[in-house]
Amino acid sequence: MVTHNPVELFEGERIDDLLTESQLKIIQSREVFSFSLDAVLLARFARFPKNGRAADFCSGNGVIALLSTDKTEAHIDAIEIQPRVAEIARRNVAMNGLEERITIIEADLKEYAQTAENGIYDVITVNPPYMKSAAGDMNINEHYAIARHEIYCNVEDIAKASCKLLRPGGKLFMVHRPSRLVDITEALRKWKIEPKVIQFVHSHIDSEANMVLIEATRDGKPDIRVLPPQIVYNEAGEQVI
Amino acid sequence: MVTHNPVELFEGERIDDLLTESQLKIIQSREVFSFSLDAVLLARFARFPKNGRAADFCSGNGVIALLSTDKTEAHIDAIEIQPRVAEIARRNVAMNGLEERITIIEADLKEYAQTAENGIYDVITVNPPYMKSAAGDMNINEHYAIARHEIYCNVEDIAKASCKLLRPGGKLFMVHRPSRLVDITEALRKWKIEPKVIQFVHSHIDSEANMVLIEATRDGKPDIRVLPPQIVYNEAGEQVI
Repeated sequence: MVTHNPVELFEGERIDDLLTESQLKIIQSREVFSFSLDAVLLARFARFPKNGRAADFCSGNGVIALLSTDKTEAHIDAIEIQPRVAEIARRNVAMNGLEERITIIEADLKEYAQTAENGIYDVITVNPPYMKSAAGDMNINEHYAIARHEIYCNVEDIAKASCKLLRPGGKLFMVHRPSRLVDITEALRKWKIEPKVIQFVHSHIDSEANMVLIEATRDGKPDIRVLPPQIVYNEAGEQVI
Repeated sequence: MVTHNPVELFEGERIDDLLTESQLKIIQSREVFSFSLDAVLLARFARFPKNGRAADFCSGNGVIALLSTDKTEAHIDAIEIQPRVAEIARRNVAMNGLEERITIIEADLKEYAQTAENGIYDVITVNPPYMKSAAGDMNINEHYAIARHEIYCNVEDIAKASCKLLRPGGKLFMVHRPSRLVDITEALRKWKIEPKVIQFVHSHIDSEANMVLIEATRDGKPDIRVLPPQIVYNEAGEQVI
């Protein structure tokens, strides 16, 4: 159970319950950043050692780092490039009394990876921007544009930073769009982060996958398992995950 | 409906019905080569132009080429390296009266690709050896060893041959083991055969995938769709595909 500390809210912000036994709460902002099912599924998919050190890249309002505290005592460094978003993440950590367990680092991931020591993390989680920066309609809202398009951080940057920062045998857990699957596995293998487990998420049993969860291991051997599919809605139309 | 011509059978061989409306039949041999669900699913998965020219690599007893004649009028070159297996394939073509539509080519795929003209095929199908030649217990039976292990033909050879022999925009359809997924997509992309559609086959809804079907396009743009999963057995344990 987390401690709930009072927190200041700014215009457009609200507090949501993360529906965990530990009663985690989160500040969301429609204008700046709000998490989706992707983040929740990634946090469920990730596996952590009991202790150690973890990082959450492209952390947004810190939702994945918050949820991960239910699964591990590892210290989590949550890295977010946008000052306004990192500031929300910092208040989220404070509101849940998790200052000892999560450190919000406001930084460009590429620069952070250069300055940090090699191999410091046992686990990295990442819910990166999904879209190529040239692809689709660029979101008008700058905050969402940066969170959703590969403006400051692309798959290659994540793979390269993970190669630098994961210890040998350390694990990267990523959620992404299936359309980018080959780009992702190519970049990971190039940077010695071998994809080892993959799971697709389908809205319905008869629809194409709209999310992919990937576990990859630093210096892992080539060989990948494809888990049973996750189906979000059952035949009655009820959300079951 | 195919014509059934009389055919000579050798020791250990039997004739099976392929359960098609066209009443295709096939010579199988427990000692030399018999097809599995993989081949049937690949033939269903593949899409062909109405006419044109197709190839089936690692053709075995010709099962995929035979089944493909139900989907296209394209001429099919079926390439098989093992003389004893190619000879069965030739009798299969004759038995079904398909000599005008299928040509069995007894050849090493790598050599065939070098001598054949560039870009001659609209479609290629392939059910290749699944296992790395060093991996697993090598099958004692030489025929099965060659069909199942990458002794004479690996994923890279298939990608390279497809690059040479597919016309721009031409399609490769492959069935393989999910464990090799990253090896496959890496080799295909390297040889300009971009993976475009992928489908996993699971025995049961809650089991890991044991087959993967891949459609890739010569000179295609990066972007892949993941189709709804195929589930072989329903909850009552009945085979439904």
